[in-house]
Parts: sequence; structure tokens; C-alpha cells
Amino acid sequence: MPSHADPQLPTLTFNGDPYPLTPGLTLLELLRQLDQDPARVAAAVNDDFYAAGHLPDRELCPGDVVDVVRMMVGG
Amino acid sequence: MPSHADPQLPTLTFNGDPYPLTPGLTLLELLRQLDQDPARVAAAVNDDFYAAGHLPDRELCPGDVVDVVRMMVGG
Repeated sequence: MPSHADPQLPTLTFNGDPYPLTPGLTLLELLRQLDQDPARVAAAVNDDFYAAGHLPDRELCPGDVVDVVRMMVGG
Repeated sequence: MPSHADPQLPTLTFNGDPYPLTPGLTLLELLRQLDQDPARVAAAVNDDFYAAGHLPDRELCPGDVVDVVRMMVGG
């Protein structure tokens, strides 16, 4: 959990760790806060998968499970 | 595409490459064929995401897009 996080805020789970859910936080804004390029990483929100470059600016909700994942290219 | 693949077979896309869809092929069988441990990798089939250890033995269909992805633990 980022040190400056307001303990009153609801949280989501990001890559297995709790993360503060500021009002109106979206998937793309979350990735920006974490220096992740939405064009280069794939992500899952709960059981929805978004391939790299196809991430929607989806509003996040308390309890959402967000995972940034790396595509393993080549079988 | 595996060299021994029967060109008559329909295909799915695995990690970006075409892969032969043998009748009744399931997600877990596909991972076994590719020496991927379903307990240790996450996977997406089209826009459905399955976390590591939670992969269903889902039957695959022609044109399915299967991606084995690696979880990036830690924000």
C-alpha cells in the first residue's frame, strides 16, 4: 500500500497487494500512477482480460482485482 | 505451428501464433502439450481471464485466442 494512502479510502487489489481506490479511479489512471504503459502491458480486472493496447478506461470499484500481466509471445 | 500439424485442422491462436485445434482440445490439455503448469501460469481465452491455479478445463473452439500470461507480482 503506498505510504501516503489515506486509510479511510476503500481499496482494490493490484498485483496481489491492496491499493487505495481514490474516487473515480480508472484502469488507465491506475496504470499511469504506476508508470505502466497501457500500450505495452495486458491487464485483467476480475475475470475480464484486456490485451496490450486494448485497455479500456474502465472505472474501478472497491474490491476489484486488477492484475497487470505480461504476454508470453511464442508458444 | 507445430511441424507435424495436419493442415486440414482448424486452428486457434496461442500466444500470437496459429495452433492446431485437435477435436476436443481443452485449455488444460493445450497447456500440457506445451509443458506449461496450469498451477503456475495465468491464461486468457478471448476476453476471459483465469488466474494461476484457477484454470478451467475449458473446451477450445476454432478461432479462440489463448494467451498464457505471467502475473507481475507487486505494484
